[in-house]
Amino acid sequence: MESEKRGPSRRGFLTGGLAMGGAAMAAGAAQAGEKAILELPPWTTQLGDGVDARPYGTPSQFEAHVRRRNVAWLTADPVSSVNFTPLHELDGIITPNGLCFERHHSGIAEVDPAEWRLMIHGLVEKPLVFTLEDLKRFPRVNRIHFLECAANSGMEWRGAQLNGCQFTHGMIHNVMYTGVPLKALLDEAGLKPNAKWLLPEGGDAAAMTRSVPLFKALDDCLIAFKMNGEALRPEQGYPARLVVPGWEGNMWVKWIRRIEVGDQPWHHREETSKYTDLMANGQARRFTWEMDVKSVITNPSPQAPIVHGPGPLVVTGVAWSGRGTVREVHVTTDGGNNWHQARIDGPSLDRSMHRFYYEFDWDGKPLLLQSRAVDSEGMVQPTKDRLREVRGVNSIYHNNGIQTWHVRENGEAENVEVS
Amino acid sequence: MESEKRGPSRRGFLTGGLAMGGAAMAAGAAQAGEKAILELPPWTTQLGDGVDARPYGTPSQFEAHVRRRNVAWLTADPVSSVNFTPLHELDGIITPNGLCFERHHSGIAEVDPAEWRLMIHGLVEKPLVFTLEDLKRFPRVNRIHFLECAANSGMEWRGAQLNGCQFTHGMIHNVMYTGVPLKALLDEAGLKPNAKWLLPEGGDAAAMTRSVPLFKALDDCLIAFKMNGEALRPEQGYPARLVVPGWEGNMWVKWIRRIEVGDQPWHHREETSKYTDLMANGQARRFTWEMDVKSVITNPSPQAPIVHGPGPLVVTGVAWSGRGTVREVHVTTDGGNNWHQARIDGPSLDRSMHRFYYEFDWDGKPLLLQSRAVDSEGMVQPTKDRLREVRGVNSIYHNNGIQTWHVRENGEAENVEVS
Repeated sequence: MESEKRGPSRRGFLTGGLAMGGAAMAAGAAQAGEKAILELPPWTTQLGDGVDARPYGTPSQFEAHVRRRNVAWLTADPVSSVNFTPLHELDGIITPNGLCFERHHSGIAEVDPAEWRLMIHGLVEKPLVFTLEDLKRFPRVNRIHFLECAANSGMEWRGAQLNGCQFTHGMIHNVMYTGVPLKALLDEAGLKPNAKWLLPEGGDAAAMTRSVPLFKALDDCLIAFKMNGEALRPEQGYPARLVVPGWEGNMWVKWIRRIEVGDQPWHHREETSKYTDLMANGQARRFTWEMDVKSVITNPSPQAPIVHGPGPLVVTGVAWSGRGTVREVHVTTDGGNNWHQARIDGPSLDRSMHRFYYEFDWDGKPLLLQSRAVDSEGMVQPTKDRLREVRGVNSIYHNNGIQTWHVRENGEAENVEVS
Repeated sequence: MESEKRGPSRRGFLTGGLAMGGAAMAAGAAQAGEKAILELPPWTTQLGDGVDARPYGTPSQFEAHVRRRNVAWLTADPVSSVNFTPLHELDGIITPNGLCFERHHSGIAEVDPAEWRLMIHGLVEKPLVFTLEDLKRFPRVNRIHFLECAANSGMEWRGAQLNGCQFTHGMIHNVMYTGVPLKALLDEAGLKPNAKWLLPEGGDAAAMTRSVPLFKALDDCLIAFKMNGEALRPEQGYPARLVVPGWEGNMWVKWIRRIEVGDQPWHHREETSKYTDLMANGQARRFTWEMDVKSVITNPSPQAPIVHGPGPLVVTGVAWSGRGTVREVHVTTDGGNNWHQARIDGPSLDRSMHRFYYEFDWDGKPLLLQSRAVDSEGMVQPTKDRLREVRGVNSIYHNNGIQTWHVRENGEAENVEVS
């Protein structure tokens, strides 16, 4: 890795500064500055809405383009489909609840919390049924975790397909969950000695089930009922979902209604025909639960071109690992010939999204932008080609390969592959 | 402080458990459990909305009661008024953007970000005007901070007035900000040697101004453009606001349009006739910027009564300090005769909200619930009476006194004072 001072030099920045804010006060652009400051805009001359107008707030009318997007051709039907988090419009590490990607198999269940129940049964001493109020009588914890679909970046196995990080990497969100450790509920039911596996089941019409090993459930799984402070959103499993930190999103059963305790996995559909990784030789990797270390540059990117000329440029993105924290992120502007240390900013939390920045003086020439994350276990994000060598291209799951954006001189970017 | 095991004993919890979840499977209540599990509810038998239905998500229809509330009689007009965060409905430490309390002086400015400008002028080498895109070319940081209005709990100076923590303590929120250190912008403009004070001005029709000492601006102030990942909400200063960590909310100028650099404070209205603390002797404390260590129990509370009988009870609340982190929170159930150590859970961050819990077996008898926070500087939250002794009752600002909820045998709670 090249050794260098991080960010643009002071000298470079001042020069850039003249092309930036300073320019507005220079002769040519003086009108713009004067207009903004001297001619008062309507929001300074008129009263706005009062505090009774919006009991539950919504984004500015000027942010209507910031939204989840689906891809119509990707699935046969919108009720068993996905939409994507607009990563290129976000910053920091918290995904606001209204923009968390959705994946459902039978549409959004609209569960009445008064009617909701969670049953724990099977290899337990005492089968139990909990109401939501029952859950809230157990000690709670708060954890910020990413949730990534195993199929995130799945279209990219066969080459650069989707033009924008919302679509290539937007099946992820990162929120603060409040919930009860699953261990507390299992302790209450009393596990029988031969208990080894759990089968959580969703309350929607898909009745999603996944086999979860008991060691994970006892370690850090939660039954969560809040996200980012407020009740779970309907599309995220309201009133309660399973949280399985660091593991693939499909296991985080939403609208959870039942947990069966058994002594072996159930081999249901979502862990046999789906969510297994078909290799080139026709064999399938299975129980690939953990999400590997991964990162993506969110700005600039195809949906977020550079809108200014050469000079100071902030490159930013997100990184995460299902195995712990992210220790380092490296950024290259030339397709991997030279790597620079990025600056990680904001809380570095266990199995949570990390925000990184790389600031430099852009000379206006084309860029081949990539980011590469290293996690707390020393795992290094691989190239897509290296992944293909090892796993072939049959699967759509667990693609954590390095993403490349080609940025043109005009600031526009596209999804490309470099070899 | 009494020494004791935290939370209910295992034995106590199992007994409680039978009155909780376990009961549903016992003979008397078997129908409820069977109905919930065997008779499939409509959300399990019908498809829900698809992924194209809600590009920007909203809360469940069953959460319509979770909203900001204003108090009509508190102010003459809703455009110069306040509404309150429903603290009793939240958990964890993040306030979702739609529920952050609002305080405006001329209504919500609806600023077009393309027209927005920030001017820095006065005692600088080079006056500058920044566009929003200019701002985004400076290195950014991410910080989770509480914002508390200096008048939060202000009605309580003269006795228990408002019945619910939303109203007594709801002029606070806690979000992750993404923004540019103000120091970077001031460095770009170049401070003259006699620069000592700043006057940020808001772009709404109130043109809010406050004098901010330069040492604070250079230390940790931000010009923020994101909250909880997405663009600031209009009512929180879209597209950019000042962030003044730990200091009273009135200084966090919204819709910021101008920062004048000077050599002394301006003594404008909001720092003379308002936001100064009139003492009993007629003199006013002024420049009381820092928000003192404070806490409140959010559940149970008047708007969130206990809905179950005796047995395991989770008491929870929030604590914060403008001087650093919260080191400890103590909870009493008997009006201060015995104090118990609460469990702080979730990230403990500088000048950020902290979440605490105190779990115990409620015997069903009346409670006098209080919480008392201690910050990282060793400051201890005082009683309201102690505050009144020192400051009198003329002011409405900076009341960080201990709050008391009287919980009746039926679980209902009310705002009371104990001497």
